[in-house]
Amino acid sequence: MLNFSKKHNYKGLLICVEGIDGSGKSTQIELLHSWLQSKGMDVILTQWNSSELIANTTKKAKKKNLLSGRTFSLLHAVDFADRLERTIKPALKAGFIVLADRYFYTALARDVARGVDPTWVRNMYSFAMEPDMTFYFDVSSKDSLERICANREPKYYEAGMDMKLSNNPYKSYILFQNRIIEQYRQMIDEFDLIRIDALDSIHSKQAFIREKVVELLNKNKIKIEV
Amino acid sequence: MLNFSKKHNYKGLLICVEGIDGSGKSTQIELLHSWLQSKGMDVILTQWNSSELIANTTKKAKKKNLLSGRTFSLLHAVDFADRLERTIKPALKAGFIVLADRYFYTALARDVARGVDPTWVRNMYSFAMEPDMTFYFDVSSKDSLERICANREPKYYEAGMDMKLSNNPYKSYILFQNRIIEQYRQMIDEFDLIRIDALDSIHSKQAFIREKVVELLNKNKIKIEV
Repeated sequence: MLNFSKKHNYKGLLICVEGIDGSGKSTQIELLHSWLQSKGMDVILTQWNSSELIANTTKKAKKKNLLSGRTFSLLHAVDFADRLERTIKPALKAGFIVLADRYFYTALARDVARGVDPTWVRNMYSFAMEPDMTFYFDVSSKDSLERICANREPKYYEAGMDMKLSNNPYKSYILFQNRIIEQYRQMIDEFDLIRIDALDSIHSKQAFIREKVVELLNKNKIKIEV
Repeated sequence: MLNFSKKHNYKGLLICVEGIDGSGKSTQIELLHSWLQSKGMDVILTQWNSSELIANTTKKAKKKNLLSGRTFSLLHAVDFADRLERTIKPALKAGFIVLADRYFYTALARDVARGVDPTWVRNMYSFAMEPDMTFYFDVSSKDSLERICANREPKYYEAGMDMKLSNNPYKSYILFQNRIIEQYRQMIDEFDLIRIDALDSIHSKQAFIREKVVELLNKNKIKIEV
């Protein structure tokens, strides 16, 4: 079924972080980014849903709450394909370390949680290469909710309100994020994700990540002074 | 490999026309539309690339000539999925005859002509049901060019200039449209398309199409006074 090209042949390296909102992954990848920069490495950081091409369309559609799960899924794939072609691949070719805050695992987890067929969505993303290393930030939906919604209600799509799981956005958030977490956990083995306990301290998570990244660089004969 | 649900279970009927630009298909489906309306039938006509949701994005991207074949392909799929969910399916459920000026065959032909993998694109569109009847308007690229480009140069994407087949837009048009025609011709058997010779007279094409449509309506026990 799966057709992912296991490994790209570019000079650079692709390192990703994954996990639901509030899992601390963005903080960690930003810290990693600064650290690699301070070591003089060629490194870029790229984010999910950042392609200019369709950012406005997605925003508009989300505001109107008018997307079906399928359309939603395809729209994110457009964004991903555009980012892959115009940001990630050229940087990898040029030998950069590319840090991706979310990669196609996000789509696989969310789309399937929204009821899209797992085989269909895997086939759709089969054009993308697998990263060289991916960290999955494991957090419970309850902890995630506490972190991101301390001062506000969860947003419509974030809470999966389109799924009609519950009329209460907090309850819906928990139910929907649990489905996403279930998908992520299944992918740990499927895609060799490195699990990070989101409840560990910022410092210890960063130390662990740097250690793993240095191993990866050494393995690929890329010099770094630690 | 293919996973198309051969037949939908809606009350209505889906009838499509396919073929490259200048094959006369739009004229024919408009004539069919008027005729069915004059017979008091519930009928709607829907066009390719007509979803408001992403029409602007596609236009903007085309203007900048910045799409890869893959992104192009996914962008059209978004449009198609949106049109399917919000126009075609509801109308079919309500028992309407839905006339589609281009359906997913257009994507299959164009995307593969642009170098996208045939299996990948068929898998992507596997969420869509097959139409009840599809007419393929067969025309040579030379006749097509004469019809649509009598007074202007072929447009960038229409001529497949992104494919770098030739620097001359007319030459490129012929080469690119030939690839599309090749894909369409392969689909005649694969999807049971009804071939129409584009060089036949407008009158005789319409007479043939009406005959076929009446047969289809009778077969589905939908009354029409001819």
